[in-house]
Amino acid sequence: MNKRIIINFIGKIILIEVILMILPLLVSLIYGDGDTKGFLYTMIPAGIIGFLLMKVKQKQGRMSSRDGYFIVAAAWIIISLIGAMPLYLNGGFPTYWNALFEIVSGFPTYWNALFEIVSGFTTTGASVLAKPEELGHGVLFWRSFTHWIGGMGVLVFVLMVMPMENDNSMHLVRAEVPGPTAGKLVPRMRTTSMILYGIYTVMTLLLIILLICFGMPLFDSFCMAFGTAGTGGFAVSSAGVAGYGSLAIEIILGIFMLLFGINFSVYHLIMLRKFKEAFCMEEVKVYLSIVLLSTLAIMFNIAKMAGGLGHALRQSFFQVASIITTTGFATVDFELWPEFSKHILVLLMIVGACAGSTGGGMKISRVIILAKSFVAEIRQIINPKEIITVRLNDAAVDKKTLDSTRIYVAAYMILLCLFTLVISLDGQDFTTNFTAVISCFNNIGPGLAGVGPMANFSVYSDWAQVILSAAMLTGRLEIFPMLLLFARSAHDR
Amino acid sequence: MNKRIIINFIGKIILIEVILMILPLLVSLIYGDGDTKGFLYTMIPAGIIGFLLMKVKQKQGRMSSRDGYFIVAAAWIIISLIGAMPLYLNGGFPTYWNALFEIVSGFPTYWNALFEIVSGFTTTGASVLAKPEELGHGVLFWRSFTHWIGGMGVLVFVLMVMPMENDNSMHLVRAEVPGPTAGKLVPRMRTTSMILYGIYTVMTLLLIILLICFGMPLFDSFCMAFGTAGTGGFAVSSAGVAGYGSLAIEIILGIFMLLFGINFSVYHLIMLRKFKEAFCMEEVKVYLSIVLLSTLAIMFNIAKMAGGLGHALRQSFFQVASIITTTGFATVDFELWPEFSKHILVLLMIVGACAGSTGGGMKISRVIILAKSFVAEIRQIINPKEIITVRLNDAAVDKKTLDSTRIYVAAYMILLCLFTLVISLDGQDFTTNFTAVISCFNNIGPGLAGVGPMANFSVYSDWAQVILSAAMLTGRLEIFPMLLLFARSAHDR
Repeated sequence: MNKRIIINFIGKIILIEVILMILPLLVSLIYGDGDTKGFLYTMIPAGIIGFLLMKVKQKQGRMSSRDGYFIVAAAWIIISLIGAMPLYLNGGFPTYWNALFEIVSGFPTYWNALFEIVSGFTTTGASVLAKPEELGHGVLFWRSFTHWIGGMGVLVFVLMVMPMENDNSMHLVRAEVPGPTAGKLVPRMRTTSMILYGIYTVMTLLLIILLICFGMPLFDSFCMAFGTAGTGGFAVSSAGVAGYGSLAIEIILGIFMLLFGINFSVYHLIMLRKFKEAFCMEEVKVYLSIVLLSTLAIMFNIAKMAGGLGHALRQSFFQVASIITTTGFATVDFELWPEFSKHILVLLMIVGACAGSTGGGMKISRVIILAKSFVAEIRQIINPKEIITVRLNDAAVDKKTLDSTRIYVAAYMILLCLFTLVISLDGQDFTTNFTAVISCFNNIGPGLAGVGPMANFSVYSDWAQVILSAAMLTGRLEIFPMLLLFARSAHDR
Repeated sequence: MNKRIIINFIGKIILIEVILMILPLLVSLIYGDGDTKGFLYTMIPAGIIGFLLMKVKQKQGRMSSRDGYFIVAAAWIIISLIGAMPLYLNGGFPTYWNALFEIVSGFPTYWNALFEIVSGFTTTGASVLAKPEELGHGVLFWRSFTHWIGGMGVLVFVLMVMPMENDNSMHLVRAEVPGPTAGKLVPRMRTTSMILYGIYTVMTLLLIILLICFGMPLFDSFCMAFGTAGTGGFAVSSAGVAGYGSLAIEIILGIFMLLFGINFSVYHLIMLRKFKEAFCMEEVKVYLSIVLLSTLAIMFNIAKMAGGLGHALRQSFFQVASIITTTGFATVDFELWPEFSKHILVLLMIVGACAGSTGGGMKISRVIILAKSFVAEIRQIINPKEIITVRLNDAAVDKKTLDSTRIYVAAYMILLCLFTLVISLDGQDFTTNFTAVISCFNNIGPGLAGVGPMANFSVYSDWAQVILSAAMLTGRLEIFPMLLLFARSAHDR
């Protein structure tokens, strides 16, 4: 491994995080809730460390694909460790010394704060807080802002603001951007990042404006838009989306969640006026069909308890949009829904949104590839002499993508089982543990039973929250980068 | 498809089932519980139909691999439909006419009886009966005997008693025998079947003798031995294994369950005095290691509640042996165990026993292949230029086996989700539905919560029992044969 290039890069990432923290710092200064110190106490030492690390210059410029995976995994862990500090230090305290030994703010321990911020960056949206409104405005803003940063990718952001060799950035993007294949919109990776963040920013601003127009308070509009854009799911009060009591806001958020769950290359194609290609994308068609079918199935299933088809449709659409995009906002307690509807939601949790979107889960394109290779296997048995290929968007899926998709699914299952087993030591029941792990691993937010939409993750003890944080990171980075942290290269030995 | 060869074969299978029913018929005559008529009313018409179908002679002798899958799937469905009749007709009734319209015996409807006998043939051992001892002895014997027949395979039995072309029998064996690759012990398939059934019979007889020696009643010894040999799990009374109150019997059953969960080629190697090869089999080593680790983990986890390590070991060993081999006998209500222990059991349910044994589940060798290809993928990322192969028993696993293993796992996951979704319409809670499907799909028997070891499947309504029966058959035949029933060949169109 090229250690110098890695250290240099980590330094840059820390510096960028410090720069990003200026925004919540300003918010905290405006509202004056006393959370300013927490930011300063984090930003000053982190800034110094980042600056020093950046001074380590690389001798040669090339990094291996493995270095890419390593940087991505390390970067996500480090920004989480640093990002948790302002939350932990929220509420003000005199010295660092105290912070090390005393319970300070809304977060009893550093590990709770870490869980919360990992949940932020990975756009999971699972919270350990019963009443987030008790936090200061600066911290609340930072918490939601991490959704926005993590949604499109931390490294993608870094690539945009920092010039670097194209090959190197490709390694990083491959490790960070979710989906079976890493998409390049244009040959240059830096331009791709800029286009992606451009689309992302414009759509987020549009959402903020719409929310303000329909009566949401200014501060809430920003935070809820970040949570929607990153498909994260942190709300700014315990009442959540339902608290605004506005059908218009529910519809706007529902539609925008779905929009942010679509492969961003569709928007790029629309920008290029390639409308035909944009609307023919198989993944998007399947995605919208699943949304439609699930919404209808749940609507009829809950019609009686919701008091009419109209109400049922409203509840069903919002929850389906929220769960399939892995956002995790809730307007009703779907824990009370019939089992059939709950099962559909669990399935949507696993399926997730489109590849190349800000959503999590297994990704629609993987599900399509899996289903198709399954059908191909059956056809192969029936017609042993035919050569059967798996096609996606009218192109044959190459062997490498097929293989890695299947291995991804296997790894996904194995890790799901292992995480659930470890978490079970904390003593919660099976449904709670299983859906908590699914929820964290797919970056959704709520699960069922003990971690249902109206509950929170404080039922778990500290060590279990750390394990679940690891599950969130592993899921966000799609397994391999995190595992590679623990693997040793033949050349290292 | 070669329709004549299929019809001819189905006829033969029906006839063989009728012949096998002579044994329980004799038992019912000896005990005179009034269940004799049920057997006669089934055997006579079935015998006539079987005989007529067998008269359809095939024009050409060759069958395609697809015909093989079709025959296996159809055969299992048909023997289940016929096999359920004596259970349904148990208790005696005057005419067929009544049977069609009235509730007769321990089974309120034909569908309950079908569930029970599918559970028998697939060696699941899930029951809808609270008190099996209320059935007649003949029916009880038949119920357990189906475990023994289904354990090694119905078609494997047919191949043994009926001469047929080697290529054709290979197709049948490939479709019926579980595991990632179909094993031939010797080049001729018929000889292989004979060796397999020879080992199976000798081991079963040995078990019967041991059980009798240690004080189990004669009738019970036969039935419990069938349940153990086929890794089925039907007991003859509601008290189950715990009812005998004998440590010796528990140990004997525990060890024999494990023995029947080992790849039978090990016994063949031992017969040939190839001890070294026999004891070096990777699958068996992993299998025994999993048993050891799980037993120890559960032992320490339940030590306090079991009242000491000794009791904990006894309970832990029996339950682990029973669940990993997918037998499903229980000596304690593990529903009451801590979550960690229950989670281990759920994992063992999915993993299952060795390929080429009578056990179900995903099979140890598949899990090994999966884990290894996962590690290989990681190594490939680290060392992109190396050529990395997956090895099992010191031989490279070929591409075809790797592919089909991965597709099997994907199909397994998809079906697990779909079955759970459909069953959820019946209104049970998530844990019950999910573990009921896992239990049926892996042919285990008990699940957790509503279908725990001391509960039974009568909580589900008739239609749900039919769906679960389909899950048992699909799991037993490892997915593809059942799906192919619904697929159409390009040549059929």
